[in-house]
Amino acid sequence: YLYPNVLHQLYWGYRESFLCIRLSFVDFNSFVTRTNTCGELRSAHVGQEVTLYGWIQYQRQGLFLVLRDFQGLTQIIIPQDEAHSHVKKLLSNAPVESVVRVTGTVSLRPPGQENPKMPTGDIEVKVETAEILNSCKKLPFEIKDFIKKTEALRMQYRYLDLRSFQLQYNLRLRSQIVMRMREYLCNLHGFVDVETPTLFKRTPGGAKEFLVPSREAGKFYSLPQSPQQFKQLLMVGGLDRYFQVARCYRDEGSRPDRQPEFTQIDIEMSFVDQAGIQRLIEGLLQYSWPEERGSITTPFPSMTYEEALADYGTDKPDTRFGMKIVDISDFLRRSDIQFVQNALSYPRGTVKAICIPQGVRYLKNKDLESLKESAKSQFNQCSALGSLRLESADLLEAAGLVLRNPTVFHFLWVVDFPLFLPKEENPTELESAHHPFTAPHPSDTSLLYSDPTKVRSQHYDLVLNGNEVGGGSIRIHSAEQQRFVLEKVLKEDSEVLSHLLEALEFGAPPHGGIALGLDRLISLIVDAPSIRDVIAFPKSFKGRDLMGNAPDYVTPEELEPYHIQVSWPLAEKEAKKT
Amino acid sequence: YLYPNVLHQLYWGYRESFLCIRLSFVDFNSFVTRTNTCGELRSAHVGQEVTLYGWIQYQRQGLFLVLRDFQGLTQIIIPQDEAHSHVKKLLSNAPVESVVRVTGTVSLRPPGQENPKMPTGDIEVKVETAEILNSCKKLPFEIKDFIKKTEALRMQYRYLDLRSFQLQYNLRLRSQIVMRMREYLCNLHGFVDVETPTLFKRTPGGAKEFLVPSREAGKFYSLPQSPQQFKQLLMVGGLDRYFQVARCYRDEGSRPDRQPEFTQIDIEMSFVDQAGIQRLIEGLLQYSWPEERGSITTPFPSMTYEEALADYGTDKPDTRFGMKIVDISDFLRRSDIQFVQNALSYPRGTVKAICIPQGVRYLKNKDLESLKESAKSQFNQCSALGSLRLESADLLEAAGLVLRNPTVFHFLWVVDFPLFLPKEENPTELESAHHPFTAPHPSDTSLLYSDPTKVRSQHYDLVLNGNEVGGGSIRIHSAEQQRFVLEKVLKEDSEVLSHLLEALEFGAPPHGGIALGLDRLISLIVDAPSIRDVIAFPKSFKGRDLMGNAPDYVTPEELEPYHIQVSWPLAEKEAKKT
Repeated sequence: YLYPNVLHQLYWGYRESFLCIRLSFVDFNSFVTRTNTCGELRSAHVGQEVTLYGWIQYQRQGLFLVLRDFQGLTQIIIPQDEAHSHVKKLLSNAPVESVVRVTGTVSLRPPGQENPKMPTGDIEVKVETAEILNSCKKLPFEIKDFIKKTEALRMQYRYLDLRSFQLQYNLRLRSQIVMRMREYLCNLHGFVDVETPTLFKRTPGGAKEFLVPSREAGKFYSLPQSPQQFKQLLMVGGLDRYFQVARCYRDEGSRPDRQPEFTQIDIEMSFVDQAGIQRLIEGLLQYSWPEERGSITTPFPSMTYEEALADYGTDKPDTRFGMKIVDISDFLRRSDIQFVQNALSYPRGTVKAICIPQGVRYLKNKDLESLKESAKSQFNQCSALGSLRLESADLLEAAGLVLRNPTVFHFLWVVDFPLFLPKEENPTELESAHHPFTAPHPSDTSLLYSDPTKVRSQHYDLVLNGNEVGGGSIRIHSAEQQRFVLEKVLKEDSEVLSHLLEALEFGAPPHGGIALGLDRLISLIVDAPSIRDVIAFPKSFKGRDLMGNAPDYVTPEELEPYHIQVSWPLAEKEAKKT
Repeated sequence: YLYPNVLHQLYWGYRESFLCIRLSFVDFNSFVTRTNTCGELRSAHVGQEVTLYGWIQYQRQGLFLVLRDFQGLTQIIIPQDEAHSHVKKLLSNAPVESVVRVTGTVSLRPPGQENPKMPTGDIEVKVETAEILNSCKKLPFEIKDFIKKTEALRMQYRYLDLRSFQLQYNLRLRSQIVMRMREYLCNLHGFVDVETPTLFKRTPGGAKEFLVPSREAGKFYSLPQSPQQFKQLLMVGGLDRYFQVARCYRDEGSRPDRQPEFTQIDIEMSFVDQAGIQRLIEGLLQYSWPEERGSITTPFPSMTYEEALADYGTDKPDTRFGMKIVDISDFLRRSDIQFVQNALSYPRGTVKAICIPQGVRYLKNKDLESLKESAKSQFNQCSALGSLRLESADLLEAAGLVLRNPTVFHFLWVVDFPLFLPKEENPTELESAHHPFTAPHPSDTSLLYSDPTKVRSQHYDLVLNGNEVGGGSIRIHSAEQQRFVLEKVLKEDSEVLSHLLEALEFGAPPHGGIALGLDRLISLIVDAPSIRDVIAFPKSFKGRDLMGNAPDYVTPEELEPYHIQVSWPLAEKEAKKT
């Protein structure tokens, strides 16, 4: 962290008329009485009288202490003379992590005592006055040890966990990246930032949407999984181009390790096609990419859904390493291995393999056993090879190879998804591969009526290092086509979407958009172990707030205005009785 | 709207090291195939081949049409020659509000046919090709007539209402103002934009918080009224300065005309005092104020709570006009009017009056009757004169005087509130005037223990033209003081806030902040009749979404995972039986 912090950005758009210069000096010391942060002072400041605020990171009893704030550390020299004995007494008794204010003079450290690893390592501050602003009781764990503690303890004491360098860095970088995204969308491309409601109602197939009781008996609001309907209606309303950093909600129920609320960069445009959205996103990410994390190249490569499944066994391939799936049917066609001949005898029977380079050298017997067990458990799934490819990569990396460098960013568009897929629980019925508002490929429109399973969609996913970080589509803008898809293909009740269907009949423009999973994207950029490390107050594995204890019981009186009561499960009813 | 749209901002901070230059050309035509918007073309474009997309605003049958998009209107000339007969047929049959794409050449309008009131009024486009992208069925009302329709109809067809100039202007200006606020806070002053959870739990006295059922029987999340607790914990976590454009939730129950969800500009800082927060907000508003709405002067004037009540009869005075409350007790002390003498005989009895200038000339008998009735209905309230002052202003304005110019912006800080007020329903008990985390005035700390009703707080409200647009305070950072206030003065259960109390014991820095009501602020800046005119999809008077029909019934199966059931009121139960 340097002060002044110079941010210099020159951006040339694809049109000559584009020019954006941003030169700004961030003032971290405005509106407060400190003269400097704890990360700023350098030899150039020697001789200056300064006022610093911070936390006592460390104290060498009565001699010096290290003061910390969000910007860094400063060495503070405790005066030893009689005139300052009260200052010495005050500071000596202050526990670690107390908050203090000190004033003093900046001096060069004695020769040989400079610390080259510390940005302020050339100087120290000789204290003139000091004040303890707040003391700190004994900590449940040391701030620097936070990373070794269980997640549960870290979450319970999140306000202490936040003092760590890593979390501060993650949250600040997140703030800066999103600010850059806003500049690109709002200032350079005229997108309008619009807030959409979160108290809405259930969408069809919205089993994952939280309910919110209302004061009208029997009626509930619902928290939306995305602003999908509203962003389309904004296009019908002629807003032309919209974006929002949107809070989305999803009740995953028995699928743990998901945040019940998460954030999307939500975008919609009128009169745009698939390529337009893709160029927008490439420009957005390139503009917002933090310099310290390298740079990204555009355009991103593109792969069809079929190719992704064939070569990588997944619709979100990690292209940082090879080990692609190879069709070896012809090679084995003359073999006399019974199960191979059996498989090849089927109409579309194939034999596929992945080659693990240096596998003989790096993998042990137990690794091969682990892969065999894994294969057995996924026996009838076509994604089996894809997941074995990833497990093999895990095993090779555990053995010391570097296959997937987290500081290298492989983006990829996956396109030409099918519009519909058979339902898992009942393959004779169809569901949307993306969502019901996705438009068919213009060449496949007639197939919609004759053979919907063959229709390709205008849906595109954005993959980063094998993770899905975004997805979107060009939408259906014809009310007739939308009604057909809902009622005749998906056999859904179109009544709950009547407002959207009617809106399409009032001159809806062609439109499309995309949403990026912000938490996931940031966690990949900073190489965090989990998305919980890029969220200030995340929920636990099971969706609980361990710090504040939510969700929590409420009294029957609190439920009364909402005309609801709790249906206690039988076991709990019995327990309550006894 | 000019293209290129040049935004030039030079900002000198109070320190010489401050410099921010922003020069940007917004490209509204990126990523799409249009060459221009419908508001851009000028005589300088004559001869150019252009591609435009838009809605048919008006058609002079088969001769010309007016094409509209978010930026403006363009006159489109329909070709009359045989070679273009298919184009003429296509466009002639297109209903108003259909979406079309046209290509053609820009020409000067014939002399005498220019329209000086239209930015594109010097030119027209002679169509070469045209395509109807989507038709429009018969509208429920004309777009230009939207403002005369009932709010209910406008809300039901919000996606049509959004096409009006006024709503588009409001939403775009809101987006730009908020972007400027972000630049000021994030880029110039180093604030970190942090998202805080909305699935939390009830706060003490949080009767207005919506509940969200969870899958744990009997346990509920709660939607917060503000990020208050979290922003304080971010300060304890050493983040130094935070902001968020935060969605807040409030179930107003039987108080209608409130949005159940609304937005605050939420801010918190460490090591700051009341004056620091005030200077920050003045700078923020000055930087973000839209040029087309004039400018504002800082610093804002300041008034104590006592002065506000005494002179204006309210804690949110409208200082755009006089008619202050005057104490005329001395003037009437020798009068022989019985009720006056009676009032003055009480220990703190006073007689106060407001003088209505030109009242004799402008107010009629029925106006005076109306004021008398109003006074009767508020007889025992000290705010009676304050509200009569406002009603008198309403009456004078109805008679033609201009007292409160909506394009003049009178900001005002109201300070020195009492820390506690007697509860309305039981005056022997105390409640917080602002909230329980507000710090007492440093000079009044000892009074906290001896006579809490006399303690002044470090709470400050921001008033604009008689509306409260913001409020904040310096917080209590001592766990001991906070516990005392909660348990001994407010007699609240401090257990539900144990995480916050414990956090204060771990070296919480002195901190304070503020929240601005964004919807209210924007509605005042654009002089909108209601905050519903600055929100894309507002709720109705009773908190309903009239377009999507929310809240709505759900099936018992949908309630089952949440272990709740509906308690139907008796009347409805009977109705269901029959």
